[in-house]
Amino acid sequence: MGISRRDCLLGFGALVAGGAVTSIVDGGTKLVHAATPATRFQQVNGEFGWTPHKLDPAECAEAAYQGYWYKGYACGYGVFYGIIGVLGEKFGAPYNQFPFAMLEANKGGISDWGTICGALYGAAAAYALFWGRDERTPMVNELYRWYETTNLPIYDPKDNAQGVKGAIPANISGSVLCHISVSKWCYENKIEATDKKRNERCGRLTADVVYKAVEIFNKKIELGKDFKTTFAVQDSVEYCGSCHQTKGQETNWAKGVMDCAPCHSGTEATGNMFKDHP
Amino acid sequence: MGISRRDCLLGFGALVAGGAVTSIVDGGTKLVHAATPATRFQQVNGEFGWTPHKLDPAECAEAAYQGYWYKGYACGYGVFYGIIGVLGEKFGAPYNQFPFAMLEANKGGISDWGTICGALYGAAAAYALFWGRDERTPMVNELYRWYETTNLPIYDPKDNAQGVKGAIPANISGSVLCHISVSKWCYENKIEATDKKRNERCGRLTADVVYKAVEIFNKKIELGKDFKTTFAVQDSVEYCGSCHQTKGQETNWAKGVMDCAPCHSGTEATGNMFKDHP
Repeated sequence: MGISRRDCLLGFGALVAGGAVTSIVDGGTKLVHAATPATRFQQVNGEFGWTPHKLDPAECAEAAYQGYWYKGYACGYGVFYGIIGVLGEKFGAPYNQFPFAMLEANKGGISDWGTICGALYGAAAAYALFWGRDERTPMVNELYRWYETTNLPIYDPKDNAQGVKGAIPANISGSVLCHISVSKWCYENKIEATDKKRNERCGRLTADVVYKAVEIFNKKIELGKDFKTTFAVQDSVEYCGSCHQTKGQETNWAKGVMDCAPCHSGTEATGNMFKDHP
Repeated sequence: MGISRRDCLLGFGALVAGGAVTSIVDGGTKLVHAATPATRFQQVNGEFGWTPHKLDPAECAEAAYQGYWYKGYACGYGVFYGIIGVLGEKFGAPYNQFPFAMLEANKGGISDWGTICGALYGAAAAYALFWGRDERTPMVNELYRWYETTNLPIYDPKDNAQGVKGAIPANISGSVLCHISVSKWCYENKIEATDKKRNERCGRLTADVVYKAVEIFNKKIELGKDFKTTFAVQDSVEYCGSCHQTKGQETNWAKGVMDCAPCHSGTEATGNMFKDHP
């Protein structure tokens, strides 16, 4: 932390007041990064300091779907705008001061890397403007477990569809990872990942995620600290976790609460695809 | 989009000026969510509109390490503060106006789900305040490929260590996912995931990620549109992608550019762990 060093340097005078000290000449010796700014980690409006207001899930879902297509900013942007942007439209600052396009980084599971579904990240980030870890984790768990187990997409934009109109296939992803969620849907339905129908699927799923996320948001506002997750922990996480996530077990190595099954069930997909692969 | 509908409603007068219209009584019929606010998706300072300034990677790494430990806000908070927070310390607004604690959602791969390494998300999000997708993706690719292939952690806080002092083991994660990155490190070194050494490993890795992220940030400022990724695409992604990520191929299903090998090589870990498992 260098606190004692900082305190010592502060003794020189008001050197760090209102800003950083990156180099200080002290008796001819240049000390680089010698001080931690006195304001480090201070935050405007406080940490998790924004005020939540109940929202209409259907209205937010519509905004999220529009946001998905807006300049192709996609899933994370759509969900985040569908909550924080809509709050901004209704209540102004601080909600409408957020640099929303930042959430475009979530597209395709973070710059197309296929990690977390960007829509799901958008919701966790939105929640984190209002609630700290202990209060937020049950909300995230509720949303993510719902996503793992629900037949999606549900939302139908009807005549407002921006990719493909009409019904499109739904499936249960079994995973919060973009790579698994998208690829499984494409595989099961024999639709190319670059097909417009796949974009439409993710656009509608963006609306679905915000609809569910706002229901959770509203319930949290109502129940406060009494908000509880309604889903049980996945069977696989309970089973594997009895050794791999239990303190004191010599195999207590595993981080994460994603369903273990998609990657650890010895499926055809996780066999050795680099040997004798069709 | 409902633009024509919105334009039509705008014809009624300045109904949507400066705010949302959630219900409008029109000739006795209540139209719910009938209009899109005229300001929807508008953003203060413009999209990707912040001005980047070169930073000192070592100074940022120190701030990121401190941020990791600050109230346990962890990896994503540490990295994001290590870039945007440090800019705020030096240049004030808009950098210091950001609600930094939002990034706490990244802990443990997003609320402990083990998806993307939160440190890596923190960097992508920071980049997205300055650069849109086409300019940012090569930066993200550079950082993420470096992370997949580098022996980490490197950073040593020496006497400022907040978890465990002294040397700790390093390894190559092979993956940008928190679950794989952490669990593989724990497995290889026979250290429990709940051990303080594991926290320390992630704290130091947070400093490493910000050091590399700031090098990339500075290089981007220097080179502008000429910034290029120095890493080749992973062999596995090239190999698998020739069918699974090539437009027109009937098996073009795969989303993502994570290294395919960790989950698709038929390793012991991805065999059927729910049957005859020791």
